Amino acid sequence: MTEASFSAIWINGERMRPDALHLSACDRGFTLADGLFETMHLFHGTVFRLDRHLRRLTRGLAALGIPARSELRDWVLDAVDAAGDVEAGVRLTVTRGPGAAGVAPPADVRPTVTVTVNPLPAVPPDVYASGLAAHVASGRRNQHAMTSGLKTLAYTDAIAAYLEAQRAGAADAIFLDTDGHCSEATSNNLFALIGGTLVTPPESCGALPGITREAVLELAPVLGVQTAERPFALAELVAADEAFLTSSLRRIAPLVRVGERPIGNGRPGDLTRRCADAYLSLVRAECGSRHLSSLDTP
Amino acid sequence: MTEASFSAIWINGERMRPDALHLSACDRGFTLADGLFETMHLFHGTVFRLDRHLRRLTRGLAALGIPARSELRDWVLDAVDAAGDVEAGVRLTVTRGPGAAGVAPPADVRPTVTVTVNPLPAVPPDVYASGLAAHVASGRRNQHAMTSGLKTLAYTDAIAAYLEAQRAGAADAIFLDTDGHCSEATSNNLFALIGGTLVTPPESCGALPGITREAVLELAPVLGVQTAERPFALAELVAADEAFLTSSLRRIAPLVRVGERPIGNGRPGDLTRRCADAYLSLVRAECGSRHLSSLDTP
Repeated sequence: MTEASFSAIWINGERMRPDALHLSACDRGFTLADGLFETMHLFHGTVFRLDRHLRRLTRGLAALGIPARSELRDWVLDAVDAAGDVEAGVRLTVTRGPGAAGVAPPADVRPTVTVTVNPLPAVPPDVYASGLAAHVASGRRNQHAMTSGLKTLAYTDAIAAYLEAQRAGAADAIFLDTDGHCSEATSNNLFALIGGTLVTPPESCGALPGITREAVLELAPVLGVQTAERPFALAELVAADEAFLTSSLRRIAPLVRVGERPIGNGRPGDLTRRCADAYLSLVRAECGSRHLSSLDTP
Repeated sequence: MTEASFSAIWINGERMRPDALHLSACDRGFTLADGLFETMHLFHGTVFRLDRHLRRLTRGLAALGIPARSELRDWVLDAVDAAGDVEAGVRLTVTRGPGAAGVAPPADVRPTVTVTVNPLPAVPPDVYASGLAAHVASGRRNQHAMTSGLKTLAYTDAIAAYLEAQRAGAADAIFLDTDGHCSEATSNNLFALIGGTLVTPPESCGALPGITREAVLELAPVLGVQTAERPFALAELVAADEAFLTSSLRRIAPLVRVGERPIGNGRPGDLTRRCADAYLSLVRAECGSRHLSSLDTP
């Protein structure tokens, strides 16, 4: 994208200077990762599937016992309106707000809500043309965690895996769950074409119920491809005919190598490209019909 | 304690008003739990085993690739000097600092360091007299996590387990690891007297290498009790003769009930009290000889 210089921050509905200080050091989002977030795709004035993001967030807030402020949707829309006709990432973060030391939440909870509008992350153009390589993380995803399936602030493990992947010369890391099944990448869901079925790990393998993942599960049958949410091992992934990663900002990125092993012929697969095109059409249809140059797959 | 009203905050060595705003909403400590912390016991001007806390933190920073600022120790000491002759908790937090959206760290890392001096958390007086009850968390601790053994900011699971324990009428939660071995409580290490040996879960069960835990492992042999770091199952814990939890701020708290099952006779055990007394003496010896009324065990 060309409008890459803006970045705007709203705290509890109030616009703040990006370079200002916004938060208390006692905010439990900062001290204990006591909160949740959504990363959303702003497509020229419309957030793709905002209501599904808000529904997932609200479920998470209820699970953590954090009150869901009724203004959440309005605050996102305010930020989006102010951002104007751009393509961007929108991040909505809700924490339990300030608290004293210790895990025990305060009696008087005043959640902190931040909305940031950011340039889309720089995806090297050859990711879509050539696909990316993933490292298999040395640590495991915990499908039995208290907060499995929730998009909490606790991304420390994902960062450690990302750094490990970088050291291994890979663009991302794939987590296995503690049973050895494929789970997801550091912040992307995983799909693999196995025996003619487009397979993705179920939530029971520690996968986040991603919004883009959900869209792909809707689209694939329309493309004539059967889908399944079922556990599969690393050996099945590397033997797959093709594979790809999904997220709101990276969208659909071909996965062509895992560790030393190419997937399929080591090139982005045909179904991957068809899913990427169909997803692009879906975003256009739901958010507007304008040409979306930076989303074009090669 | 009676000096319960103070709370002071230092950001990168600079004293800030506690009620001010201190941090950017783009700080990766806030957005992704990309950082680590230490909670330490300030005993009338001296932090108990500050250097061991700093060593553990430095190890963690190296593991996450966050530069360790050389001023860390000085900044803690500045905050401690300003706090004066009080008993308090000192929290040192180091994050990777501000960053753009996404797990990929910025090229130019400017870590954020916060030091807060806080009143000791209110421990109900009967915790030491009567002991506390723990719930067994429904979710598991992941001993195979990328950051297992590091005191990262990712406490979301601990908070969820704490809330679950509260709903069950318990004061804390015990995590099992994914193999079903006892791991630790939400922010305390766990000890159990099993067959005459004082046992604590090893790091390989997802336990944090706690500073108080380490002190207990030093002290118990002096009290004539053998220790072991070895895995043990929940059945062994509930059949133990006594048990206790340890942390820098709660120190040594008798654990007298797990779920519906009393431990031993359901009262704080003799060894627990002797360990608590010995620990208190150690703190006094290393930090000064003043009488420490609020640490007195009944």
